[in-house]
Amino acid sequence: MNKLDMTQAIMVAKETKEVSWENIAEAVGMSPVWTTSACLGMNSMPSDKASALCQYLDLSAEVREALEQYPTKVWDQAVPTDPLIYRLYEVVGVYGPTMKEIIQEKFGDGIMSAIDFNMSIERKEDPKGDRVIVTMDGKFLPYKAW
Amino acid sequence: MNKLDMTQAIMVAKETKEVSWENIAEAVGMSPVWTTSACLGMNSMPSDKASALCQYLDLSAEVREALEQYPTKVWDQAVPTDPLIYRLYEVVGVYGPTMKEIIQEKFGDGIMSAIDFNMSIERKEDPKGDRVIVTMDGKFLPYKAW
Amino acid sequence: MNKLDMTQAIMVAKETKEVSWENIAEAVGMSPVWTTSACLGMNSMPSDKASALCQYLDLSAEVREALEQYPTKVWDQAVPTDPLIYRLYEVVGVYGPTMKEIIQEKFGDGIMSAIDFNMSIERKEDPKGDRVIVTMDGKFLPYKAW
Amino acid sequence: MNKLDMTQAIMVAKETKEVSWENIAEAVGMSPVWTTSACLGMNSMPSDKASALCQYLDLSAEVREALEQYPTKVWDQAVPTDPLIYRLYEVVGVYGPTMKEIIQEKFGDGIMSAIDFNMSIERKEDPKGDRVIVTMDGKFLPYKAW
Amino acid sequence: MNKLDMTQAIMVAKETKEVSWENIAEAVGMSPVWTTSACLGMNSMPSDKASALCQYLDLSAEVREALEQYPTKVWDQAVPTDPLIYRLYEVVGVYGPTMKEIIQEKFGDGIMSAIDFNMSIERKEDPKGDRVIVTMDGKFLPYKAW
Amino acid sequence: MNKLDMTQAIMVAKETKEVSWENIAEAVGMSPVWTTSACLGMNSMPSDKASALCQYLDLSAEVREALEQYPTKVWDQAVPTDPLIYRLYEVVGVYGPTMKEIIQEKFGDGIMSAIDFNMSIERKEDPKGDRVIVTMDGKFLPYKAW
Amino acid sequence: MNKLDMTQAIMVAKETKEVSWENIAEAVGMSPVWTTSACLGMNSMPSDKASALCQYLDLSAEVREALEQYPTKVWDQAVPTDPLIYRLYEVVGVYGPTMKEIIQEKFGDGIMSAIDFNMSIERKEDPKGDRVIVTMDGKFLPYKAW
Amino acid sequence: MNKLDMTQAIMVAKETKEVSWENIAEAVGMSPVWTTSACLGMNSMPSDKASALCQYLDLSAEVREALEQYPTKVWDQAVPTDPLIYRLYEVVGVYGPTMKEIIQEKFGDGIMSAIDFNMSIERKEDPKGDRVIVTMDGKFLPYKAW
Amino acid sequence: MNKLDMTQAIMVAKETKEVSWENIAEAVGMSPVWTTSACLGMNSMPSDKASALCQYLDLSAEVREALEQYPTKVWDQAVPTDPLIYRLYEVVGVYGPTMKEIIQEKFGDGIMSAIDFNMSIERKEDPKGDRVIVTMDGKFLPYKAW
Amino acid sequence: MNKLDMTQAIMVAKETKEVSWENIAEAVGMSPVWTTSACLGMNSMPSDKASALCQYLDLSAEVREALEQYPTKVWDQAVPTDPLIYRLYEVVGVYGPTMKEIIQEKFGDGIMSAIDFNMSIERKEDPKGDRVIVTMDGKFLPYKAW
Repeated sequence: MNKLDMTQAIMVAKETKEVSWENIAEAVGMSPVWTTSACLGMNSMPSDKASALCQYLDLSAEVREALEQYPTKVWDQAVPTDPLIYRLYEVVGVYGPTMKEIIQEKFGDGIMSAIDFNMSIERKEDPKGDRVIVTMDGKFLPYKAW
Repeated sequence: MNKLDMTQAIMVAKETKEVSWENIAEAVGMSPVWTTSACLGMNSMPSDKASALCQYLDLSAEVREALEQYPTKVWDQAVPTDPLIYRLYEVVGVYGPTMKEIIQEKFGDGIMSAIDFNMSIERKEDPKGDRVIVTMDGKFLPYKAW
Repeated sequence: MNKLDMTQAIMVAKETKEVSWENIAEAVGMSPVWTTSACLGMNSMPSDKASALCQYLDLSAEVREALEQYPTKVWDQAVPTDPLIYRLYEVVGVYGPTMKEIIQEKFGDGIMSAIDFNMSIERKEDPKGDRVIVTMDGKFLPYKAW
Repeated sequence: MNKLDMTQAIMVAKETKEVSWENIAEAVGMSPVWTTSACLGMNSMPSDKASALCQYLDLSAEVREALEQYPTKVWDQAVPTDPLIYRLYEVVGVYGPTMKEIIQEKFGDGIMSAIDFNMSIERKEDPKGDRVIVTMDGKFLPYKAW
Repeated sequence: MNKLDMTQAIMVAKETKEVSWENIAEAVGMSPVWTTSACLGMNSMPSDKASALCQYLDLSAEVREALEQYPTKVWDQAVPTDPLIYRLYEVVGVYGPTMKEIIQEKFGDGIMSAIDFNMSIERKEDPKGDRVIVTMDGKFLPYKAW
Repeated sequence: MNKLDMTQAIMVAKETKEVSWENIAEAVGMSPVWTTSACLGMNSMPSDKASALCQYLDLSAEVREALEQYPTKVWDQAVPTDPLIYRLYEVVGVYGPTMKEIIQEKFGDGIMSAIDFNMSIERKEDPKGDRVIVTMDGKFLPYKAW
Repeated sequence: MNKLDMTQAIMVAKETKEVSWENIAEAVGMSPVWTTSACLGMNSMPSDKASALCQYLDLSAEVREALEQYPTKVWDQAVPTDPLIYRLYEVVGVYGPTMKEIIQEKFGDGIMSAIDFNMSIERKEDPKGDRVIVTMDGKFLPYKAW
Repeated sequence: MNKLDMTQAIMVAKETKEVSWENIAEAVGMSPVWTTSACLGMNSMPSDKASALCQYLDLSAEVREALEQYPTKVWDQAVPTDPLIYRLYEVVGVYGPTMKEIIQEKFGDGIMSAIDFNMSIERKEDPKGDRVIVTMDGKFLPYKAW
Repeated sequence: MNKLDMTQAIMVAKETKEVSWENIAEAVGMSPVWTTSACLGMNSMPSDKASALCQYLDLSAEVREALEQYPTKVWDQAVPTDPLIYRLYEVVGVYGPTMKEIIQEKFGDGIMSAIDFNMSIERKEDPKGDRVIVTMDGKFLPYKAW
Repeated sequence: MNKLDMTQAIMVAKETKEVSWENIAEAVGMSPVWTTSACLGMNSMPSDKASALCQYLDLSAEVREALEQYPTKVWDQAVPTDPLIYRLYEVVGVYGPTMKEIIQEKFGDGIMSAIDFNMSIERKEDPKGDRVIVTMDGKFLPYKAW
């Protein structure tokens, strides 16, 4: 079973059982963002996590195996069109050079890892309209001289 | 004076005076990320903030006027090449659909605004290597039906 | 049922029943532009609206569920080729910077929302050739400083 | 004098005299959108309008001649990055096929002209946040069979 | 039946009956270029023309309905590769600015319509090699000032 | 003198002397389209034609030499944005496959040359709006088998 | 039968019968390059050649008809990735302007036709490593003035 | 002196002295294609060849040094627009897969080198129109297994 | 059987038999990198190697034949998105000009062959985190003058 | 002084003093690849290294400061055209998926860092033609689950 069919199977089960990504993440014992990304085929799950997920959603061993596979991460749109995703792309375009200035001022020459990395997303209540809080947490990697 | 020359003038003054973006932001009374983005030409400064900045860095009225101008936000590289900025682009590519799932599960159909938006960047100490903490905080905007 | 099959089913029913988008919109109690966009898979319908539509067109519960799903908005052609749609793209290319000047003169630094947004399209009779009147109505969103 | 220098000269005069695009348009006796687009080099002005503009802003005969020239309309970014202009592009991407359905249902097979075309932009007060009202008015052009 | 299947059906019938585009156009009572373009899915046929075509080629009512549908005009290759079509593209690249100079000298600021437009293609005998004569005939549309 | 400066010099002389492309072509004894294309740097002029042109417009020997040089034909925009030129591009996109069908039905497998090629542009009066008549005349080149 | 299926059928027959392109070309009485290009769908075969090929390879009348059809020449990769084909692309990039200089010095302003064109490919033995000899032979086409 | 200025200097000297690429090549004792490519900045000249060229054209030591430098081979247009160069690109597009079939049938799996490579261009007289003969001669490089 | 199906068959057999690429390479008597690349369809296998592989994995003669076929090497993403592959692309972008300087300083004007080329990948233990050692070994090819 | 001018200054000094990258690297006490990349503006130098370099090449304090600045790593060509650099790009295209298989088989799901990374380039003598040996050494970074 490839990752596309795996995601399809999880989506159907999630809808049938009427559970949320938070429910699934709790059953797996991991964070919602990471759990969802693995279900969408963008991360591989350790065996015990994949088993827990398939047990919770009554999914087959084939889904479990697909969850464990190392993904090839591919996206088709160099510039995404969906408005929610485009706004994130826009943030990178508008604030990318600013983030470079601030990070390198605090840490020296290097980057924030996107591999040794985690992310959480929270809802903050606000009388003027609730707010999305995205927290990215990545290891700083200094450039090595040799 | 256009925004490019303005940024150039600020950079030279910043280096000469040996001050950091944090120092400048403090002098202006705003956050480091926003202050830096305005200095890089990606946001406009209210008049009092622009004056405070120019006073702190001994810059001319022309720089102040340029800081107040509404920018046209342009970036040349649809896919950025600098590794620090590319990693942010990669996060959008890898986690964009996941973020859409999580945000829309928490809020309903809509987006996180990139306009009614702010961001902070902090350094978290960690014995295995310090970490960059980026916090994005954007208003949720629901799609309107009509 | 995915959005593509949903649109297909609605198109067939619309043709069989010989009704217009205006008829459908009236049955749903919403505007023609929004109703059509939801049928083409570019907006999600609240449950009662989706039910009304499916009752009016004798469509299955699967179509109703597909109408309620939050869409991922994707378009393939960065520059559209269909002449009707290209002319709209051309208007953005030719008048985009003008619109920026006028809107920011009236409102300050910010944008017109494409989310808190609605649109109507009318026919205006004219002896030299009838005219298309497109009215876009979007909330002004000021850039926040922080 | 080419169109770029012409725009530059007008911008400087506009800032020095502290007049708005509305003021300039009134002096010229035309609409603000069209007047601005001609000043940005995207439309040609008839001789009397160009003269009125140059008299109002104390600009040279060279500027007048440049305003009268027929422009070559060029834009560099197939997908615009400035958020205000991108939102308009997004509207074309999201609602383009819907607009095609509605216009062709009302008029038959054809397009809305972007040449025999005008546009106005107004501010509508709203307690939840003022709104931008863009009205496009283009002649319907039916496809000819032969 | 969609336009692609319609074209396929017409092509098969045309080959089976061993008729030319000229024969089909004559049967329909329209020009060869327009008739062919409608058969290739790039124009819609009025009902009587579609009926005449289907009668002539013994095609089903489904083909007739598909011929009447308003097409979405899409092409995949921004720069066409087929040598015959590329040469036309090359003519636009090499002579486009020249055509702009000549047309705007004769008519003023405006364009040649591609909608209120027709075209014919003839063969001119020539002892050095016969020649293709393409005649385009489009309404001049002046830019409107407002 | 390169072709860009040559065009610039011719444009200035043309405006100063208040002559049209038709006048210049008549002085040179060639067609307006070809003469204009040579002046825009897209064709080379034989020596006698270049001399006639420079004499008519009082231009230097350097301009004459530049007119005689073989051009490298370059255009920057794969998809042109100027509306007049875009409409020609659109004609190629919409009618290219039709033209291929018609030409190859009349001539066999081959192409219309864009090298052994000429073009004329005329104004046809019409009470509903005057029309642009573009006539392209290119040698048919059959594919050779070997 | 379309050209893709035709190529597939020829490839299978070629492998089964264990014949080379040279064998096929000899049976057809044409050159190997042209014969191969027709089999790959990039040229049309006259009826007698198509018959000879199908007789030699025991292929059906459908293959013969497909061989006779005029191809639409399409390639997907503007920059080819296969190393053998890329090297040819590289030769055009590195030596294209040189070839223009040399050809136009020998012939005047014009081009080498890719239509009235043939090519052969030979193997030249060499102790340091055998060499590929590609000979292109195209008619010179002078630009016409008019 | 960079390669661009070097080419400029050689072009001026070539025109002033009224010599051809063939003359220059003969003076240098190398082939016209290679000599021209070095003058256009696409190959480096050994010291003695560069000296011979500069002596023949009365050029400075700076030009000689620039000729000896190893070039970075860059071209801007992935798809060239000049008709002469485009036709070569078209040959690669149309005949690339054919050339791969023929070369690999004759030599096995591998490529024709574009580095251990040479090319000549000749004029062949022909009563129907003279022909350009391009001969490419590249070492076959077999893929290595390891 | 085409290369895609071949890879699929090998992947299934590899998983079922629970063998590694190293095991397969050892069975074939070739290096792991080359063996894997042939299994992924990017190199052709000599007949004995293909037989050995199919015997080891219990695969059919069809797989063997597919392994022997000369591949057309195609990749879809000009800029790869998978993070592991992107980092390699980034190395070429960041260090490409440096590698050119160093290689040409050591060898003269020329390139490193990607055809007469091999590569190995090793794991080096390191207390701060194990390291990937990639060794590329390509023949230097000097540019030929002629 | 920006990085471009810095590179220019170093290149001139390197040529004047007739020293190699190896000499410079030795003087600095670092590897040739890293030293060259810093001189080409793709890495920042610690202060003592920059001083050593400027002392060795008799360069100004401005060059030293430019060497210490953190670079923004930009390259213009998504697909490089210079043959030496293209071959490296080709290696990534041809062997990228193979390298992913091998690395992830040896290490698990993760990547080779391009930041905690070094590279060396050596010349290996070989009677059939000397060889370029490129050794890349990057830390393995496992994907983190959270």
